[in-house]
Amino acid sequence: MTNKPYSVAIIGLGAMGMGAAQSCVKAGLTTYGVDLNTTALEKLKQDGAYAVSQSAVDFADKLDAVVLLVVNAAQVNAVLFGENGLAEKLNKGAAVMVSSTISAQDAKEISQKLTNLGLIMLDAPVSGGAAKAAAGEMTVMASGSKQAFDKLQPVLDAVAGKVYNIGEEIGLGATVKIIHQLLAGVHIAAGAEAMALAAKAGIPLDLMYDVVTNAAGNSWMFENRMKHVVEGDYSPLSMVDIFVKDLGLVNDTAKSLHFPLHLASTAYSMFTEASNAGYGKEDDSAVIKIFSGIELPKKGA
Amino acid sequence: MTNKPYSVAIIGLGAMGMGAAQSCVKAGLTTYGVDLNTTALEKLKQDGAYAVSQSAVDFADKLDAVVLLVVNAAQVNAVLFGENGLAEKLNKGAAVMVSSTISAQDAKEISQKLTNLGLIMLDAPVSGGAAKAAAGEMTVMASGSKQAFDKLQPVLDAVAGKVYNIGEEIGLGATVKIIHQLLAGVHIAAGAEAMALAAKAGIPLDLMYDVVTNAAGNSWMFENRMKHVVEGDYSPLSMVDIFVKDLGLVNDTAKSLHFPLHLASTAYSMFTEASNAGYGKEDDSAVIKIFSGIELPKKGA
Repeated sequence: MTNKPYSVAIIGLGAMGMGAAQSCVKAGLTTYGVDLNTTALEKLKQDGAYAVSQSAVDFADKLDAVVLLVVNAAQVNAVLFGENGLAEKLNKGAAVMVSSTISAQDAKEISQKLTNLGLIMLDAPVSGGAAKAAAGEMTVMASGSKQAFDKLQPVLDAVAGKVYNIGEEIGLGATVKIIHQLLAGVHIAAGAEAMALAAKAGIPLDLMYDVVTNAAGNSWMFENRMKHVVEGDYSPLSMVDIFVKDLGLVNDTAKSLHFPLHLASTAYSMFTEASNAGYGKEDDSAVIKIFSGIELPKKGA
Repeated sequence: MTNKPYSVAIIGLGAMGMGAAQSCVKAGLTTYGVDLNTTALEKLKQDGAYAVSQSAVDFADKLDAVVLLVVNAAQVNAVLFGENGLAEKLNKGAAVMVSSTISAQDAKEISQKLTNLGLIMLDAPVSGGAAKAAAGEMTVMASGSKQAFDKLQPVLDAVAGKVYNIGEEIGLGATVKIIHQLLAGVHIAAGAEAMALAAKAGIPLDLMYDVVTNAAGNSWMFENRMKHVVEGDYSPLSMVDIFVKDLGLVNDTAKSLHFPLHLASTAYSMFTEASNAGYGKEDDSAVIKIFSGIELPKKGA
């Protein structure tokens, strides 16, 4: 590291990206924010970003690193290699941290294209939820070269509470994240199934929630998401459609490994049904709405 | 309460019952222990029990309360109403805390029989695992009369970190526990499915465990049970066959309520398959052994 200030652009200012960007600002990095949503851009500018824009191309030549927290592989590819793509405009040797949840295959293909342009990739999905992102305490499960880890050290220091070095091979980080999402998705669907059954049995859901969160049936996702069901608030922090995508990746991964997934395939069907029933843009806890014949708590009741 | 010492018998000295009995001793209650296993009886005697026996009938007339932590409703019925049954020999007004996981219907039938004998029942399943039981910090989810709660207050004070009063109706406690077990069982099966997929993908399981337990995919059961998989130690703390029984109760409950359970029915099949494959008496984490074509960690490796 020289004494030159370190410049990083966070691309995708959703729940996780906004927190990551704020953490970079707090850590003293020269932070750029990129999103199509101008409200998010204004917020980050007020929070101390050096500059914000709907396109990272505006400051591509100033960047040491880029963190991609967009929704899926198609968006990663569009940002980097699409029309007016960012990758060609970055300085040689710049590091690209791909933190979106994508398949191992997509991670490998993106890495190959970046390498061809003289850029360095870290396959670095994240977890932890919006609160941990805002606190600079995300969990990062990363694979890549030592050079990639070194170059991104200031960013990892800023955004992560824990960094796992899974190995050198690009794709390992993606795979670990996908297996993590298997658990996250099944836990939300199981929480919904349990709370729906409780509603049918006439158990007050706030009491059921309280029991579970104080007992061995608890999960991180149950505690976080079933609170939304108890409060009747399905404002999306993370949407049903995200889990249609992520559990789709889980099942694609299992298929490519010739491996059966009894529960994750079922959970995928539950989220897909919820999406088709019109709840795709609601909070992922809205998967509980696939169950008929029950009355759920209403917001403000 | 008078100043007369309070006498309680714990029947069933398995992982939870032993801890509950030790907690009663620590709290200063005159504690009796009952089990068929003489090793368990000797241990509890050494730990300070007033007396132990293979049959509670030996000291039935001395008891203020009985706590049943046997395996299932058949055992509860056998202890209370079988040949040389305990219920007829208890003093009128004694309290029977039924803490085994049983169906709401069984709880109601047992309560009716106890009431006919002038006894008081608390429908009071427990959770928390062996460590919490030993620490006197079980979670108790109970329903019953105020009289039942009052009479059992010294026991609840001794064994519970948290007591939920679900309502007066016998059966509500059982139902809440069964819904809790839906989550516990699905979480173990999901943990096994995720770790099996990680093994197939070539991810070291200790690393996968470390990532999940530091991220949003974690559950109480994942953290507790997948440790056994990582260590290759399937010594039973709670057996596969317990979840065949408990998820069977979950599915019976759903059937009686005319309610679909996508995930719990699948998890039930996974545990049943594990039992049929010969793993019924192993730790419930051995459900992972239903997956072929993977190599799992060996004990001491």
